[in-house]
Amino acid sequence: MEITLVGAGNLATNLGLALKQAGHVICQVYSRTENSAMALASLLDCPYTTDIKGIVNSDIVIISVKDDALPQIGTALTDSPSIVVHTAGSVPMNVIKCKRRGVFYPMQTFSKSRPIDFSEIPIFLEASDEDSMNKLHALASTISRNIYSLNSEKRRYLHLAAVFACNFTNHCYHLADDILKEVGLPFDVMLPLIDETARKVHDMSPRDAQTGPAVRFDQSVMSKHTELLSGRTNEIYEIMSKSIFESHDKLRP
Amino acid sequence: MEITLVGAGNLATNLGLALKQAGHVICQVYSRTENSAMALASLLDCPYTTDIKGIVNSDIVIISVKDDALPQIGTALTDSPSIVVHTAGSVPMNVIKCKRRGVFYPMQTFSKSRPIDFSEIPIFLEASDEDSMNKLHALASTISRNIYSLNSEKRRYLHLAAVFACNFTNHCYHLADDILKEVGLPFDVMLPLIDETARKVHDMSPRDAQTGPAVRFDQSVMSKHTELLSGRTNEIYEIMSKSIFESHDKLRP
Repeated sequence: MEITLVGAGNLATNLGLALKQAGHVICQVYSRTENSAMALASLLDCPYTTDIKGIVNSDIVIISVKDDALPQIGTALTDSPSIVVHTAGSVPMNVIKCKRRGVFYPMQTFSKSRPIDFSEIPIFLEASDEDSMNKLHALASTISRNIYSLNSEKRRYLHLAAVFACNFTNHCYHLADDILKEVGLPFDVMLPLIDETARKVHDMSPRDAQTGPAVRFDQSVMSKHTELLSGRTNEIYEIMSKSIFESHDKLRP
Repeated sequence: MEITLVGAGNLATNLGLALKQAGHVICQVYSRTENSAMALASLLDCPYTTDIKGIVNSDIVIISVKDDALPQIGTALTDSPSIVVHTAGSVPMNVIKCKRRGVFYPMQTFSKSRPIDFSEIPIFLEASDEDSMNKLHALASTISRNIYSLNSEKRRYLHLAAVFACNFTNHCYHLADDILKEVGLPFDVMLPLIDETARKVHDMSPRDAQTGPAVRFDQSVMSKHTELLSGRTNEIYEIMSKSIFESHDKLRP
């Protein structure tokens, strides 16, 4: 298919590369920022524009920009004959105003410098009409094996869950790294534990997988921990411990 | 070597199985609770006792009990001629009172029902004397390739970091699962994202790996999220988002 990419950030970069590799033609990259547009266009070997009115039509126009910028672009493309989709987890489909519209949400954490194997990434689709849904499904199936159809309301919950499972998890890693630095230990010592924590929930529910002082409310350990903490990180320790205990306490017979 | 296991919980079970498999002799299992003692002794095909005075000497006595129970057992074994070690992350070595003592801390998340490959687990050792350290190192090296020497004070920080990287991370998975349940989505849709989040920090620092609305302070997404939350989970959302933003804001030029 012929694809136009609107946006040149982490997601647009990874998606553009995956689509090109799957044999699709990237017609154009648009970004407000000339450097970003140029960098991605050069990576994908295609033209670029920084003029919102110069965005070209194609089979599917994929908008991957910061959520705040979506309404402006959605409106600018009101008269587009293309299927216009966005890739945002928590924005309703109807921020796009043209006739054939949809959502193409690959749920993953993207960093520009890190190429991603799309085949395992679940892609959540929504469309204004059956023909558009079929085209989006055909496109998605060239890069992933996990494709779901999901409406805007449910997608909001999904995106929120992803913030907990990915963004907050990564921040827990970051806080662990800060604590290790205080005693000169390398972050690498944590990797076997981090890997097993992730592997475990493939086989057990996260509730059953929970371990640590908070679930057994081991106050002696917990107070030794909070002695080492201050400020925001101490607040996080307290509230996470309470939440762990409460979640398990509710379930005790 | 001949090993006595004091305790019959998740860690004692996994450690006992790994030691037996490596060819060591488990002389005895002690637990206050007869059912637990019997279950582990039967798994390891060895005698058990529920009498703290009946704990037998061996090359190394390994105590894996709840931290609160350590002082009592440490004191009960004051006259032991064995090397007596505990396996607790945040308890100083000197809770054990006998002459040859130490710490044998395998940093991992253990659940009884889930057998663990010990070979990748980092084991952190401390000992009262060089000869005991050598014996502990010899024992550890039969089950793991990652062995470190670490004093009690640094181990406290390590254990605290592990609470963030494992226990709090798993709780983030649990909260994500709760959110998905509200719209009838299975937890499995999160697994590719969870796996990539863990894989990413093998190659990038957690700071560089951070993504999501909080790091770019995307208030429009964040307020849509908090509309869906209430109570403790909403508090966690707010404080984690603040902490993510602050950690990155400090680093901006």
